[in-house]
Amino acid sequence: MTRTLIAQPLTKQAFAPFGDVIEKAGAEKIAINRGNCIRHHALSVADVKGEGSQVGINIFAGKPYALPHTLDMVERHPLGSQSFHPLGDDPWLVIVCSDDDGKPVDPIVFMAGSDQGVNLNPNTWHGVLTPLYNQTDFLVVDRIGEGNNLEEYFFEKAYSVELS
Amino acid sequence: MTRTLIAQPLTKQAFAPFGDVIEKAGAEKIAINRGNCIRHHALSVADVKGEGSQVGINIFAGKPYALPHTLDMVERHPLGSQSFHPLGDDPWLVIVCSDDDGKPVDPIVFMAGSDQGVNLNPNTWHGVLTPLYNQTDFLVVDRIGEGNNLEEYFFEKAYSVELS
Repeated sequence: MTRTLIAQPLTKQAFAPFGDVIEKAGAEKIAINRGNCIRHHALSVADVKGEGSQVGINIFAGKPYALPHTLDMVERHPLGSQSFHPLGDDPWLVIVCSDDDGKPVDPIVFMAGSDQGVNLNPNTWHGVLTPLYNQTDFLVVDRIGEGNNLEEYFFEKAYSVELS
Repeated sequence: MTRTLIAQPLTKQAFAPFGDVIEKAGAEKIAINRGNCIRHHALSVADVKGEGSQVGINIFAGKPYALPHTLDMVERHPLGSQSFHPLGDDPWLVIVCSDDDGKPVDPIVFMAGSDQGVNLNPNTWHGVLTPLYNQTDFLVVDRIGEGNNLEEYFFEKAYSVELS
């Protein structure tokens, strides 16, 4: 028996338990630069822990994943948030889980538009970066610092992720 | 007599006195996610000052500027770095100045590709966000917090910015 997960649209409301959606819709808007620019303000904030830790800016270059996608593991970063914003034109998948006493449960798959990023709260179980269709670069804002900031969990039985 | 500034290519070396160029070329590369993703690591780090300040993630939606571009003011943010990364497909201009005892001098205009972002060091004089050709969104990582983090300077005589 395959366990199937169907992607749902990424919305601020549905994603709220896991972090922030980084998008213009619904943002606080501030006109700057003599009206030539609209600042969509503080869509999320970085949250890093541990002495000497910093907020770094990185580019992740990700190969696309085929569909249906086999989800056999998730990971989390206890010491910091991690944001992803696509620099390409394709939709992508955001996969998150709730936590039950240290184990990831109830995976949810969100279909994100090319104009949507996310910032995962610290210690939130999530699937690896999952571009679709084309190799895609993502701007990533996360913690730079010492200490173990990665926990992985392999499911006994994989999930099959489908779009519909 | 018009004072003309000609744009030069944006390179890490030329931009180093003002901040970091955020691009894949020349980065530390780390293979992650079973080889499906290359992390271009710590291209820059956010630098914010002041108690209670945070590193925020924003989207700036900027109208394009016509060429030649009239540069009549620059600004700086004493309390934090500010990064810009284009989410569109067009080149854009990065204008910076050196500081001479609190006044901006020697403006330099860089032509940035659509695959190049920058992180301006705190207190670096810079022109406003200057997309070219099309309205463009930029992911911006900068300081969120109390206190005056903006200083503006209007030139007595404007500069004319041209591509060549």
